[in-house]
Amino acid sequence: MIIVMKPGAPRKETRAVIEKIKDLGYTPHTIYGKTRNVIGAIGDERGKIVLQSLESLPGVDRVVPILKPYKLASREVKPEPTEIRLAPGVSVGGRALLVIAGPCSVESDQQMVATAMAVKAAGAQVLRGGAFKPRTSPYAFQGLEEKGLRILRKAGDAAGMPVVTEVMNPMDVERVARYSDILQVGARNVQNFSLLKRIGKSKRPILLKRGMMTTITEFLMSAEYCLSAGSRQVILCERGIRTFEDATRNTLDLSAVPVLKERTHLPVVVDPSHGTGHSKYVPSMSYASVAAGADGLMIEVHPAPEKALSDGPQSLTFEKFRELMENLRPFIAAAGRTI
Amino acid sequence: MIIVMKPGAPRKETRAVIEKIKDLGYTPHTIYGKTRNVIGAIGDERGKIVLQSLESLPGVDRVVPILKPYKLASREVKPEPTEIRLAPGVSVGGRALLVIAGPCSVESDQQMVATAMAVKAAGAQVLRGGAFKPRTSPYAFQGLEEKGLRILRKAGDAAGMPVVTEVMNPMDVERVARYSDILQVGARNVQNFSLLKRIGKSKRPILLKRGMMTTITEFLMSAEYCLSAGSRQVILCERGIRTFEDATRNTLDLSAVPVLKERTHLPVVVDPSHGTGHSKYVPSMSYASVAAGADGLMIEVHPAPEKALSDGPQSLTFEKFRELMENLRPFIAAAGRTI
Amino acid sequence: MIIVMKPGAPRKETRAVIEKIKDLGYTPHTIYGKTRNVIGAIGDERGKIVLQSLESLPGVDRVVPILKPYKLASREVKPEPTEIRLAPGVSVGGRALLVIAGPCSVESDQQMVATAMAVKAAGAQVLRGGAFKPRTSPYAFQGLEEKGLRILRKAGDAAGMPVVTEVMNPMDVERVARYSDILQVGARNVQNFSLLKRIGKSKRPILLKRGMMTTITEFLMSAEYCLSAGSRQVILCERGIRTFEDATRNTLDLSAVPVLKERTHLPVVVDPSHGTGHSKYVPSMSYASVAAGADGLMIEVHPAPEKALSDGPQSLTFEKFRELMENLRPFIAAAGRTI
Amino acid sequence: MIIVMKPGAPRKETRAVIEKIKDLGYTPHTIYGKTRNVIGAIGDERGKIVLQSLESLPGVDRVVPILKPYKLASREVKPEPTEIRLAPGVSVGGRALLVIAGPCSVESDQQMVATAMAVKAAGAQVLRGGAFKPRTSPYAFQGLEEKGLRILRKAGDAAGMPVVTEVMNPMDVERVARYSDILQVGARNVQNFSLLKRIGKSKRPILLKRGMMTTITEFLMSAEYCLSAGSRQVILCERGIRTFEDATRNTLDLSAVPVLKERTHLPVVVDPSHGTGHSKYVPSMSYASVAAGADGLMIEVHPAPEKALSDGPQSLTFEKFRELMENLRPFIAAAGRTI
Repeated sequence: MIIVMKPGAPRKETRAVIEKIKDLGYTPHTIYGKTRNVIGAIGDERGKIVLQSLESLPGVDRVVPILKPYKLASREVKPEPTEIRLAPGVSVGGRALLVIAGPCSVESDQQMVATAMAVKAAGAQVLRGGAFKPRTSPYAFQGLEEKGLRILRKAGDAAGMPVVTEVMNPMDVERVARYSDILQVGARNVQNFSLLKRIGKSKRPILLKRGMMTTITEFLMSAEYCLSAGSRQVILCERGIRTFEDATRNTLDLSAVPVLKERTHLPVVVDPSHGTGHSKYVPSMSYASVAAGADGLMIEVHPAPEKALSDGPQSLTFEKFRELMENLRPFIAAAGRTI
Repeated sequence: MIIVMKPGAPRKETRAVIEKIKDLGYTPHTIYGKTRNVIGAIGDERGKIVLQSLESLPGVDRVVPILKPYKLASREVKPEPTEIRLAPGVSVGGRALLVIAGPCSVESDQQMVATAMAVKAAGAQVLRGGAFKPRTSPYAFQGLEEKGLRILRKAGDAAGMPVVTEVMNPMDVERVARYSDILQVGARNVQNFSLLKRIGKSKRPILLKRGMMTTITEFLMSAEYCLSAGSRQVILCERGIRTFEDATRNTLDLSAVPVLKERTHLPVVVDPSHGTGHSKYVPSMSYASVAAGADGLMIEVHPAPEKALSDGPQSLTFEKFRELMENLRPFIAAAGRTI
Repeated sequence: MIIVMKPGAPRKETRAVIEKIKDLGYTPHTIYGKTRNVIGAIGDERGKIVLQSLESLPGVDRVVPILKPYKLASREVKPEPTEIRLAPGVSVGGRALLVIAGPCSVESDQQMVATAMAVKAAGAQVLRGGAFKPRTSPYAFQGLEEKGLRILRKAGDAAGMPVVTEVMNPMDVERVARYSDILQVGARNVQNFSLLKRIGKSKRPILLKRGMMTTITEFLMSAEYCLSAGSRQVILCERGIRTFEDATRNTLDLSAVPVLKERTHLPVVVDPSHGTGHSKYVPSMSYASVAAGADGLMIEVHPAPEKALSDGPQSLTFEKFRELMENLRPFIAAAGRTI
Repeated sequence: MIIVMKPGAPRKETRAVIEKIKDLGYTPHTIYGKTRNVIGAIGDERGKIVLQSLESLPGVDRVVPILKPYKLASREVKPEPTEIRLAPGVSVGGRALLVIAGPCSVESDQQMVATAMAVKAAGAQVLRGGAFKPRTSPYAFQGLEEKGLRILRKAGDAAGMPVVTEVMNPMDVERVARYSDILQVGARNVQNFSLLKRIGKSKRPILLKRGMMTTITEFLMSAEYCLSAGSRQVILCERGIRTFEDATRNTLDLSAVPVLKERTHLPVVVDPSHGTGHSKYVPSMSYASVAAGADGLMIEVHPAPEKALSDGPQSLTFEKFRELMENLRPFIAAAGRTI
């Protein structure tokens, strides 16, 4: 069993762990490392489960080491939270909650302008909409591409909102950056390292979605790809992981919020629309996300979900979104945040 | 139940399936599609599992179940929520939030009385503590058994709190029911059908924990076992499912809360201690659980987590629990609940 | 990073690892343990992924330790394989492959005798059949109970075959042991510790099925429960784990065969019927199981799968089972086994 | 597509769904059940994803897809297996088993030539080696890039073997195709649709690896992307999926072999090196793959695994690979194949 001490843990805490190990009948053996100390506990294997409880002692980071392979993304390198400015008066990672809303796909001028106006009136600050769509089927609607980018930009300008849209191809990064304030990397591309390296060189903030198969450590490594390419503006987005449960489209891993907030200084937002896949569960999971400590929400809204070219079942109507924002307010206050 | 035929299955195979459906007492209804036929089997739900065997017939591609297999647990049978009275002035499933707190294992009189007093003062209404412990290792502490039951009862009485403890063996149901107000079925026994049938005959309310591998439908079927044995007092407890993510001990599936509240009238509580496995994540996930719509929380508290005989890493100190309860209040109010 | 040496690794192998660690630019630090040595490698974190390659060096067991909590089940305690005698001329764990066959549920005398004769003629040595059935739904067929035990025994005697059947309740162990040569613990009860402790006291061999969410380590801990209660005759059965893939009922984890054969001396059999859930995939996965090194197979066979009261879709007809056994022969020979 | 209505949904809601189905160009067919109605939507498959949005309509409980969404990849469209010629005398998908071998990363001329000679002598027909490496960490070795391609080509030519290497960026497809006979799409890029569309236009055969969280249906949809872009030469590669089990790096899903062989005409190979992550399990799982019906194997071999710049723990030495190929022969014969 290996006990990993916190970096900078005072000597007396290390000594306390050592004493505790002796108390429990083991022989402590300390390795003084470059950044932190680890202590091996030598002895009979049976009772070692008890040693797990040492995790509760001051100064102990973990019991049984998993080396954290990220650096720039870590709190150890940058303890204070990163606040990212997205537009005048709009930022994420500070006290104010960020709400991103809009349809899955950009479909028409009319659809986008109507949605922009509606979500802005309800309290959203950023408009979303996909122009390049990663669809499981090659026969499904693939997005309006550059035409979609233009429509999105126009709708954002009309409503006075910054916009976010997905980039799928490293070759498109510059083109998309001409239209969009924020560049989104989708869940399926979270380990598309060519894309991460290229997008990390852009001056635009990046909204990086967790993959459905990505551990939190791997997710931070993907952020590290962007950071090590030069970016300082990565927003992390939990959007559900794949499990055996099929009542929801994915399993929204809300524990990822406190885990990420502990490990990294980067802002964390939650997408309960993809996380649940059904509009009826989106409000509860939005409230829960804010309560869990998320810095923002990303919610799918469509003027007529039953006609949507993609993700209809998980999109809210304008009316349902307005209601959600209304009911969200006391949770925002309870979380010590503003909007 | 829908039977999907293979594309190009000959007419006589389709006819054979139709005959078989009639034999089993259902009414067949065929939809002739462009590439393949599908056959609906109309009839009472209960025996439909037998229809699955039609997959063995030639020409059948798949059998797709349509109906939810639980009855007594469903909102369709009982639309209004079930409120369960646990003690004078203590209930779950109504407007008031229920908080259950206490150590993983009953270890001593002193430990239990001190904990009972501390959690009651902080606002908990029910005391928990394990006397029979399901431990992965046969060499780990297995609980104080009957001695533990007596200690738990005494501590509950001292603090004026109802108590809950786990039953693992059908043979122990009566014995445990003599000491405990609520009978807990642990996650590992969620499909121990002998235990469910036996415990369903008890007059005590049942706290049924979701297994780490149990779908929501299976979870409700396990509740159905208790209900069909006679119980009307089953409390469901989400406590995390097993996934690939290892930053947390389990992945707390908070979406299960709105899904369960939609499908069943039974009360739903959340155990963020097992759900996360680390005390540092318990407060955020408690707030999130209440925001998601849970009827209650079950939280591990220990006077000295680093000395706990089980689950130390996920147990809160008295002080941390008091803080959590303090910070929980605005979220309770935001959720339209009282405590 | 921690390098765990094999127990009894010669000094020169430990020295080689230490030298290698230095070569890679790290500072080695050795902890001389009671049964084996572990070596910490101190240095900058970035390149440490390279250290993973040390696993290929002679004498190195693993890189990054996971303490194995089982003892009696381990190869370290008993290096030679355990061969379990089931009846005169029938055993498992030696060179001869064991084939267990029969229906999911015992339904009638006629069904069992016909099946026993058919599977025996095709080469199976043990007859299976469930009298107590763990069914997800309380409304599904629950088994013929004691009547089923009598039918199973009679059919086994008629064909001259030992029989295996499941026990679900600790209270039933003795009763079932009166009828059955082997006692099966089902997947849902793999962590029903009350049952494991009770059944471990029986003189009958135990067939322990892996749970659908049980890690290999936990599976061995469940075997350890039986062993520490006194049994020396535990047969392990891989039967598929639960994953996100739904093309098969479970995901048959065949890698578990070599992993288990490395870690434990206990025999390992595979159940491709539950593993895949569809009879059409059972032959391929049977061949693959034998090729992977399994000591035996457990296969569901029914005279008329489309009429089966449980698990029809995954049951083979007599003819399909005969064919499978025929085609299996060259794989048995290729694996260096007999039947 | 089947639309399941809620129990007790009013007639007018059912009528509205029927109208909507007609609007979308499908023919509705209603089955009036005892507790609820279900409506089949009959029509061409491609656009059916739009029908999912009907879930947003009042009264709709669920939308259940019936048809398999891939066409060109399916056995229904092309019943006979596809055999792909890779070089004179080397093909996959016919009777002869294909063996691909080589190191994870191309590191040097010497390493590649030695490996090529060794694996060819042992019976492998195709040489593998990575020049562009998708690594979780930006600080890990990223591959020799174009220099690596040149080394790989030279080693292949020296040994008279076709070569395969991974492409990560749509921009690199042409460049890589100049050097490599087969283009590999890695597991992390299995839903990188920009890459799939681009690579589908190449004249080179494609080796498409299953993602660690990709269902078999999604995997075939990714193949469909390549096929619908023009390719007729897609080789599918099972390489393990991500599950909760951590004794192996991934869980090799060998059942995927018979499932894929049933659904698609495309050849299926297995990569037991990534599938298990430990060289000691590679031989057993290679035998099992062939027994399960795989058309080929892809195995990592390195002159000195403990010095490998990536994937050392799962690489075989020349000697171990020679042994594996020797022991594989009887299994190849048992499977009715040649090499």
